[in-house]
Amino acid sequence: WGERQRVNGTATLSHIAGWLEREGWIANFDLAASGALPEGRRGREFSDSEVYKYLEAVAWEIGRLSAADDAADAGAIAELEAQFRSVVDRVAAAQETDGYLNTRFGRPGQEPRWKNLEWGHELYCLGHLFQAAVARVRTRPDADDGLIDIARRAADLVCEVFGDDGIQSMCGHAEIELGLVELSRVTGDERYLRQAQLFVERHGTGVLPDIEFGRSYYQDDLPVREADVLRGHAVRANYLAAGAVDLAVETGDTELLGALERQWTNTVARRTYVTGGQGSHHQDEAFGDDFELPSDRAYSETCAGVASIMFSWRMLLAEGESRYADLIERTLFNVVATSPSAEGTSFYYANTLHQRRPAEHASADEVSPRASSSLRAPWFEVSCCPPNVARTFASLAAYVATADAGGVQLHQYAPASIRTTLDGGTEIALEVETAYPAEGSVGVQVLTDAAEPWTLSLRVPAWAAGASLVVRDAAGAEVPEASASLEPGYARVTRAFAAGERVELELPVAPRFTSPDPRIDAVRGCLVVERGPEVFALESVDLAEAGITATDVADILLDATVPPREADGHVLVAVRGRHPEIGPWPYGDEVDAAPAEASVHEVALVPYHEWAQRGPSTMRVWLPA
Amino acid sequence: WGERQRVNGTATLSHIAGWLEREGWIANFDLAASGALPEGRRGREFSDSEVYKYLEAVAWEIGRLSAADDAADAGAIAELEAQFRSVVDRVAAAQETDGYLNTRFGRPGQEPRWKNLEWGHELYCLGHLFQAAVARVRTRPDADDGLIDIARRAADLVCEVFGDDGIQSMCGHAEIELGLVELSRVTGDERYLRQAQLFVERHGTGVLPDIEFGRSYYQDDLPVREADVLRGHAVRANYLAAGAVDLAVETGDTELLGALERQWTNTVARRTYVTGGQGSHHQDEAFGDDFELPSDRAYSETCAGVASIMFSWRMLLAEGESRYADLIERTLFNVVATSPSAEGTSFYYANTLHQRRPAEHASADEVSPRASSSLRAPWFEVSCCPPNVARTFASLAAYVATADAGGVQLHQYAPASIRTTLDGGTEIALEVETAYPAEGSVGVQVLTDAAEPWTLSLRVPAWAAGASLVVRDAAGAEVPEASASLEPGYARVTRAFAAGERVELELPVAPRFTSPDPRIDAVRGCLVVERGPEVFALESVDLAEAGITATDVADILLDATVPPREADGHVLVAVRGRHPEIGPWPYGDEVDAAPAEASVHEVALVPYHEWAQRGPSTMRVWLPA
Repeated sequence: WGERQRVNGTATLSHIAGWLEREGWIANFDLAASGALPEGRRGREFSDSEVYKYLEAVAWEIGRLSAADDAADAGAIAELEAQFRSVVDRVAAAQETDGYLNTRFGRPGQEPRWKNLEWGHELYCLGHLFQAAVARVRTRPDADDGLIDIARRAADLVCEVFGDDGIQSMCGHAEIELGLVELSRVTGDERYLRQAQLFVERHGTGVLPDIEFGRSYYQDDLPVREADVLRGHAVRANYLAAGAVDLAVETGDTELLGALERQWTNTVARRTYVTGGQGSHHQDEAFGDDFELPSDRAYSETCAGVASIMFSWRMLLAEGESRYADLIERTLFNVVATSPSAEGTSFYYANTLHQRRPAEHASADEVSPRASSSLRAPWFEVSCCPPNVARTFASLAAYVATADAGGVQLHQYAPASIRTTLDGGTEIALEVETAYPAEGSVGVQVLTDAAEPWTLSLRVPAWAAGASLVVRDAAGAEVPEASASLEPGYARVTRAFAAGERVELELPVAPRFTSPDPRIDAVRGCLVVERGPEVFALESVDLAEAGITATDVADILLDATVPPREADGHVLVAVRGRHPEIGPWPYGDEVDAAPAEASVHEVALVPYHEWAQRGPSTMRVWLPA
Repeated sequence: WGERQRVNGTATLSHIAGWLEREGWIANFDLAASGALPEGRRGREFSDSEVYKYLEAVAWEIGRLSAADDAADAGAIAELEAQFRSVVDRVAAAQETDGYLNTRFGRPGQEPRWKNLEWGHELYCLGHLFQAAVARVRTRPDADDGLIDIARRAADLVCEVFGDDGIQSMCGHAEIELGLVELSRVTGDERYLRQAQLFVERHGTGVLPDIEFGRSYYQDDLPVREADVLRGHAVRANYLAAGAVDLAVETGDTELLGALERQWTNTVARRTYVTGGQGSHHQDEAFGDDFELPSDRAYSETCAGVASIMFSWRMLLAEGESRYADLIERTLFNVVATSPSAEGTSFYYANTLHQRRPAEHASADEVSPRASSSLRAPWFEVSCCPPNVARTFASLAAYVATADAGGVQLHQYAPASIRTTLDGGTEIALEVETAYPAEGSVGVQVLTDAAEPWTLSLRVPAWAAGASLVVRDAAGAEVPEASASLEPGYARVTRAFAAGERVELELPVAPRFTSPDPRIDAVRGCLVVERGPEVFALESVDLAEAGITATDVADILLDATVPPREADGHVLVAVRGRHPEIGPWPYGDEVDAAPAEASVHEVALVPYHEWAQRGPSTMRVWLPA
C-alpha cells in the first residue's frame, strides 16, 4: 500500500488535476465567478463534485506526508498546499452571497436551483464539498484557506432551504447526509446533524418521481429503517447507508443502526461479488436481486467499492466486529486497487469478473465515453472513479487501526507506525512490520512501556483458519501463556507491554480454492482461487507460457483435484485445454462439449487487481471445474 | 394461432387504438395539421412509428378477415376499414407539402429536420410508414385511402435529401432500408431501391458519432458485408439485416447475401437464447458477446423477436433452408407469443428466462415506465411491442407456406387453407389439419387433381429426430413407396396428387431434456425441458400443488435421471426441494449447499409463453440438475 500511496500522491493527483483543468471542470468555477455562465460551462451536472473529491484527496495527501515527518517531503507538501489553496480560491470566488455554490444551476439561462433534485446532484456536490472541508480540518486543523467557511455557508443555506419548514425533499444521489454529519462533528453545529436526519428520513417516502429504474434507484422506495438489504444504485445505496450510520451513532438511534446492520449483513450474504464488488447491473449501476451476480456483466463500480468501504468502516466503528474490516480489506484489494493502473494514470470505472473479448485499445489521451471500457482509461465523461480512488488511497492510514479506552485495534495490515495515548494516560507507540499479503507474518513491535495492562487487538480474517499468535518478550523469548491459536475475529493480547516486546501474528496465506453458494447461478460449477485477501484470475496472456494451445480462457477447464500451489512467487493451478467446435445451435442433447485434452498444464494466475496490465486479454475469475 | 389471431384482431387492436388516442400519439398528427405544434405534443421522438405499426397491423387484419371470406366478419371488416381510413386521413393531414412527415421535428420550436439522425428516428418512423403502406397494397391493392401516396411523397423526399448527392448519413435505428425495398417492390420505383442501398452501405462507415454504447449500437462499427455476427441493439441489428437481405435479393448481390447468411449462422450459434430470444443487455438493449446469455438478465426484447423473424423469413425466401423456418417457429412460440397476455391487452417488453422475485403488481390502467416489468403491462412509455406483436400476429398466415414453380412448401404448422397456381398452370388447394404443437400429427389434405407431378415440401424441425411421413391415397390406403422416415430439413413428396389424397407428417413432440453449450456460463449444470417447438418453465405457483414445501424455484433441484413425461396434458419433471440457510458470506470451502431432500416430487411445468398468467411467481427456464 505504501507504493500505491506514493504513486497516488504523485502521478494520480497530478493526472487528475491535469484532466480537471483540461476538461474545464475547475474553470467552470472561474466562469461562475466572472458571471460568464452558462456559456462555456463544460462537463456533466455533477462535475463540481470531482473538484471537491480532488480537494479531499489533496487534503489527505498533505496530511499523510506531514505525518510521515520526512524532510524530503517538504517540497511536495508545499506544492500540494499551493495547489490546494489555488483551487479553493477559485471555488470560493464562485460561491454566491447567500452561500449557494454550484456551477450548473440557478443563473439566467440555467435550470433553476433545487428544481431537479432527482438528477441535478446539487446537494450531492455539496456533500463532497463538506467531506473535503472536513478532511482539511482533520489533517490541518489550523489551515486558513477558508474551505471550512465555504462549506459552512453552503450548509447553512441547505438547512434554511431544506429544513423542517423548507422543501420537503432530498437529493437523488445520497452523499450530503454523511457530509452534513461530518461537518457537524468538526464544527459542533447541531443544525447540520438535524438536516442530515431530515434527509435520511425522507428516503423511502416517495418524494422523488418514479422512474424507469424504479424509486429503489435512489433509495426512495423504502424508509432506511425499514429496509432489509441495499438496493438500487450501488454508490447511492452505500453513501446513504454510511451517512445513516453516522446519524445513528450521533443520535444514539439504535433502531436505525440495527436496520443498517441488517442491510449490511444481507447485502454481503447475497449481493456481493467474491471481490467485494457490488452492483450487478450496467443499466442502472445497481444491485441486482439476491444471488444475481453475473461475472461477465459484473458492474462492480469502483466508486461503489469506495462507498462500501465507507459504510463498512462506519459499521466497524459502531460495532467493532471483524467482519466489517474483512470486507473493507477484500474491497480494498480487489475492487479499489483493481481500478488504477500500476502507473496510477488510468482507471477501471467498472470491474468485470469475466472478460470475454480481448480489450479494445483505450487511448491514454482521450476521454472514454464508456464506463465499461475493457482496458483502463485515463478519464471518463463521468469521471468519478479517479478522484474517488485518490481520496481513498490518500486516507488509507485512517483505516489501519483504532484506539479505545482499553487499547489499540489493528484492522488492516501494512507497515505502519502507530502512536496514541489511552484515556488513562498510557502512551503507546507501535511499529507494524509485515510483507502482507505477500507473506502472512505480521509483527507488532512495542516501543513503549506501559504501567497498566492494555489490550492489543489484531484482526484474524474469516478466511484465516489456522492463524496463530506468538508474544515475545524484549529478549525475543516466547511468552507461552500469551500465545494462542486463533479463531477468526479479533485476537486480543492484554498485557502491561514493555518496550521491545513483540506480538507476531501468523496468517495462513497459502492459495486456496473457494466455491460459490449454489444459488449464484452465474458461477455454478466453478471455483475461484484466493490467497489471503486477494482474489486471483486467469488471463489468456498466460496460456501460451504454460504450453497450452488454447488461446482463450473460455477453452480452459480447471482440474479441481489438484490444489492450487505457489512457486517462484506465482500462484499455479492445473488446467486442461479443449478445442470445441461451434455447432449450428448451442442447445441440444449432443451439443459439442469437446472433452478436455488429457494433458494437464500448470498455469499461473494473476492477482485480480493486477489484471490487464499486460495488454488485451480474456480473463476469468471463476474457473469451470 | 387461430385463437391468438382472433384475440389480436379484436382485443389487441382496439386496446392499441385506445392507448394511442389516450396517450395523444395519434393526436400529435392533428396538432401538426392544425399548426399547433410543438406545444401539446406527447410521447417520445418515435411515437409516430407506433401509429404506423398499428396501421400495418390493421391492414393485415383486414386482409386476414377478407381472405377468410366469412360473412360473419363483414361487420368487423367494415369497422376496421373505417378506423384505418380515419387514422390515415389524420396522418395525411400532417404531411407537409414537400412530403416531410414527422410530428417531432422541423417546426419552429422543434429540433430541425435531419439534424439528430442518431437519436431522432425520423427515417425509422418513415420506414414503418412504408411498411404500413406496403401491407395495405398487398392485402387490398385497390384501396383508395391514399396511404401509398403519402408513403411515396415521403420516400421521394428522402431520396432527394439523402441521395447520392445528399446528406451522406443514415438513421440511428435501421428500418427504413427494408421499408424502401418493399416500397420499390410494390411501386416498381427503382429510386427507392437505390436509396435503400445507400443507407445499407453507409452502415459501418462511421457516419454517426461514437457513443457510450459504441458505434456497434447502431451498426455503424462495421460495414454490413464485412461483419461476422449481429451486434449492438438487437432490434436495430435485425431490421438492418432484414433490409439488407431484401436489398441483396433485389440486386443479386451474392456477396452481401453471403455476409448475412454468415451473420445469421453465427448469431444463432452463439448469441441466441434457447427461446429464440436475442439481446443479453438491458443497458443498451443489445447483443452481448458470444455465449453471454444470462437467464436472469435476459433482455430478449419482444421487438427483437419480431425483427429476428423478419430477418429469418427473408433468409428462408432467399435460400430455402429449414433452419430459418426453425428459428422463426421457435421465436414465434417462445418470444412473440410470450409477450401478450391471454387476453391480448398486456405485454412483456422484455422476456426474462429467470424471474428471481415475484413480480410487482402491474396496473392495467397505467403506463409502465419500465421495459423490464415483472408482470405484463398494458402500455409503456416506449410502447413498441404491442403494435409489433399485433402486426406479426395479423400477418402470421404469410409465414405458413410458400410456393415456387415446382410446388408448395409448408414452413409452419397450423390449421390452414392453402391455394395457389403453379407456373405451369396446376391449381393446388390444400387443407392443413393439425392440433400442433399439442399433438405432433400434421395432415395435409389435397383438394385438387394435378395432371403433372408437383412437390409438397414439409419442414421437419431440427429437434424432430424420428419424424415420419405417410402418404395415403383417396381411399385412405398408404402409398408405401411415398412414405418415409425423415431427417430434419424438408421432407418432399413429388407426385401428381389427386384430390382426396393425404400426406400425414408425424413429428415426435414428447417432452425432452436439452442441455446447453458449456461456454454458456450462465446455465452451466442446468437442463431445460422442451416439447416440440415449445420451451417449458418452472413457476413457483406450481410447487405447492406438487407437495413441495420450498416456495421459490431457487430451492429446487432437478432429478435429471428421470426423463420428463407427459400426463393429463401436463409436462412433468422430477425434482427435489432443499432448504438452504443463507450464511454470512456466499463463498468458501463450506458454503451451505443444503443437500436436497431425499423425496422426489413430480411438478408440472408450463409452456414458457404461458408463464405469469396466474399472478406473481418466481420462474426459471433452466433447471439446475
